[in-house]
Amino acid sequence: MPKQCIIALDLEGVLSPEIWISVAEQTKIDELRLTTRDISDYDELMQRRLKILDEHNIKLSDIQSVIEKLPLLDGAREFLDELRSTHQVIILSDTFAEFAKPIMKNLGYPTLFCHNLEIKDDRIVGYKLRQNNQKQHAVEALQSLNFAVFAAGDSYNDVTMLCAADKACLFHATDALKKQFPQFKAAESYDELMREIVLFGVSLTMKI
Amino acid sequence: MPKQCIIALDLEGVLSPEIWISVAEQTKIDELRLTTRDISDYDELMQRRLKILDEHNIKLSDIQSVIEKLPLLDGAREFLDELRSTHQVIILSDTFAEFAKPIMKNLGYPTLFCHNLEIKDDRIVGYKLRQNNQKQHAVEALQSLNFAVFAAGDSYNDVTMLCAADKACLFHATDALKKQFPQFKAAESYDELMREIVLFGVSLTMKI
Repeated sequence: MPKQCIIALDLEGVLSPEIWISVAEQTKIDELRLTTRDISDYDELMQRRLKILDEHNIKLSDIQSVIEKLPLLDGAREFLDELRSTHQVIILSDTFAEFAKPIMKNLGYPTLFCHNLEIKDDRIVGYKLRQNNQKQHAVEALQSLNFAVFAAGDSYNDVTMLCAADKACLFHATDALKKQFPQFKAAESYDELMREIVLFGVSLTMKI
Repeated sequence: MPKQCIIALDLEGVLSPEIWISVAEQTKIDELRLTTRDISDYDELMQRRLKILDEHNIKLSDIQSVIEKLPLLDGAREFLDELRSTHQVIILSDTFAEFAKPIMKNLGYPTLFCHNLEIKDDRIVGYKLRQNNQKQHAVEALQSLNFAVFAAGDSYNDVTMLCAADKACLFHATDALKKQFPQFKAAESYDELMREIVLFGVSLTMKI
């Protein structure tokens, strides 16, 4: 019999818009558009973001209000609903539970592995990564439970997860990323992504 | 900051009725009531069950029809919906994906780790455990991802999971089980179970 498979999906860029970019757009604070492409050290980037929020007196609830109004990517809910009716799915995201909550509600509460913010009186005073490189560790933990893992993501912080997975697919990735990792299929629509997932299931069956 | 917690729940007896018992009742085949209390070797028990199904010409689709009509335990969906709105939840069950599917639909597709049946032309010809002692392994894998795990279950096959968890609770357990494992709190209602989960979250906060 084939192995059971499980699907690990990135959140931002795959099912929802990028949270910090959306917050930057809504608050009209361009500095919040900074990403690891601008400041490569993640901790430095996060401390900078928290400082910017403080300077503009933006609280957690303000950001949550922005996120609550963010529409999912077009077709994301339908894709995920269909996928969850036939597969086990876990969302692996480097966002924070406090930001993700309204998105998870809109997605029908799939299981999410992510990080946490430190909040004092509605002010974001810090953050805590649940685990460094948590996406790769999660894939490996699922494999240790005898799951075959299919992973999909859109950006550099997904690469170790994609490499660890039994099968991986880029989704809505930049041309640079696609060029750098030609070993991964690149899907541009949910239909294509679903097709890759189905093909993965078939490939497992062939290995009986 | 406190650890993130995740809730591991058994399925049958905790959220849904016992599947084999329900199938026995619906098909009026008393022999299908056999459990590991009657035949302690699980493989022997399963082979016997499959033989009984064959003798009565009962196919997978017949069993699925029975399961589709099984109501969840009273209040299970409401409890799980509330829990999933605030916590990550994974269902750890020793049932088979092919049986669990309609139950998962009724529960709103929480993530499920379970086993598989081997099907040929709608006949159940075998089964495959994804992993022996999968519940305990899953708890340990989640802990390796730096989650604090709260687990709840109702029967002997949950004990290794309950022992491995950071905090555990029996739910609707027999008096014998409660007596044998007095170290676990015993909840008899979803309100009590939710209270234990909330207290667990508070205890994590106290450990900051």
